[in-house]
Amino acid sequence: MDKKTLFGNIQRKASFLCVGLDTDLAKIPSHLLKEADPIFAFNREIIDKTADFAVAYKPNIAFYEALGPKGWESLQKTLEYIPKDIFTIADAKRGDIGNTSKLYAKAFFEQMDFDSITVAPYMGKDSVSPFLEFKDKWVILLALTSNEGSKDFQVLGTEGGKPLFQQVLEKSQQWGTDDNLMYVVGATRGEKIAEVRKYAPDHFFLVPGVGAQGGSLEEVAKYGMNKSCGLLVNSSRGIIYASEDKDFGDRARVEAEKLQQEMAKLLEQYC
Amino acid sequence: MDKKTLFGNIQRKASFLCVGLDTDLAKIPSHLLKEADPIFAFNREIIDKTADFAVAYKPNIAFYEALGPKGWESLQKTLEYIPKDIFTIADAKRGDIGNTSKLYAKAFFEQMDFDSITVAPYMGKDSVSPFLEFKDKWVILLALTSNEGSKDFQVLGTEGGKPLFQQVLEKSQQWGTDDNLMYVVGATRGEKIAEVRKYAPDHFFLVPGVGAQGGSLEEVAKYGMNKSCGLLVNSSRGIIYASEDKDFGDRARVEAEKLQQEMAKLLEQYC
Repeated sequence: MDKKTLFGNIQRKASFLCVGLDTDLAKIPSHLLKEADPIFAFNREIIDKTADFAVAYKPNIAFYEALGPKGWESLQKTLEYIPKDIFTIADAKRGDIGNTSKLYAKAFFEQMDFDSITVAPYMGKDSVSPFLEFKDKWVILLALTSNEGSKDFQVLGTEGGKPLFQQVLEKSQQWGTDDNLMYVVGATRGEKIAEVRKYAPDHFFLVPGVGAQGGSLEEVAKYGMNKSCGLLVNSSRGIIYASEDKDFGDRARVEAEKLQQEMAKLLEQYC
Repeated sequence: MDKKTLFGNIQRKASFLCVGLDTDLAKIPSHLLKEADPIFAFNREIIDKTADFAVAYKPNIAFYEALGPKGWESLQKTLEYIPKDIFTIADAKRGDIGNTSKLYAKAFFEQMDFDSITVAPYMGKDSVSPFLEFKDKWVILLALTSNEGSKDFQVLGTEGGKPLFQQVLEKSQQWGTDDNLMYVVGATRGEKIAEVRKYAPDHFFLVPGVGAQGGSLEEVAKYGMNKSCGLLVNSSRGIIYASEDKDFGDRARVEAEKLQQEMAKLLEQYC
């Protein structure tokens, strides 16, 4: 999917909501465990009920990998079930030497047909570039994450007084453009997201920190939005586990719509 | 596997050789393509012929993931086929927020039974710690890799004038010990590996850079060895693709034995 199409979808749906499909056998309603593929059965219902309000779906690959070969089949079926006009993110945080990254890129962009993949920057340019060579596919590079451990290395001051995440933002813009490169930005305080936005004014940010991970949607939009919206804000648990019962799909729909309504106002105000 | 057992195996076999199972359908001898599971058929032959000389096997997970669910089955079969006294490394370079890293740990340490997994440090402590909670299982943390892109971030000077990889080495030693934490150290020049050894005197290093990736085994041993050997030196292509023909297993054995013979001398000299 290209950037223009993604922004078109955001405008049409008045939403920049990404629904995280962190689907866990231990958390899905128990009546689904009778199904041949409980994970897919759960995802299908979530997709059916939230597709009106979401512009992206983000399966976290660990949840599928933890189930072995069957998990990969559930993932593949889920991906095929997602309507084609919705952006898909393999939240895989991959990254290896060049020929290996190329294999990961083939796995997620060809073997499966994801629009994008999250990638870790530690190994530098040749670990990221192979993912950037696929037309209309995206790298979403970890820049500043929202977890406690982000303080260990990402904010360390480096040469020129720049924190490491700024080096990642600046260097990686020599490898890709705002048409094939986004960033994971877990900043949820206004001043922080404004700072990150300064170093990457045109790129999309994937913001993981709304819902269970905390964070104010209003602040993210006010300080992070650009003229193409520039934001995909993810919510996982707050939507998909809104109910533990048979009504989980309907309750997910209610939560997704709530966020979409808020996002519609923010788009009008800041974009 | 615990450290004592690993060092015992190194002494018994007079070898610190890790064989990288980067098994690629496009590169294996064509007669194997008739087999039901060509990847496993190839790996089985390589293991049969090299197990006398190797103390570790390291499947690069990308090669299996690129084949979809079938690839995971080949990986699982390969892992089960490796003799139990040989250390196994899932070269996966994973790392995510805590609850997600926990799932990856379960996938590789429980669902599969790898002894260790390579992990990327960018997301900090809570992305690494979940892997350290499994008894006799190991994290092999990326410190200084051997690829060109290692120069982008890993060697950047940070606070106190310390390059980033030194920060990774120092901080991570507060999270794990030399009984459950190793490092990927792609330094193949003597002075560089001596520098890294200074910051982590007791830990094992996984060194990827011998063979196709270049690098001198003599220098690595001279400057990198410690009193428990402290080195696992990997060779992939140089061994497993020594021949493209039906004799690939025998030729792999020859190459593995050559390295083992060299290692035997180096162990005597420096350990």
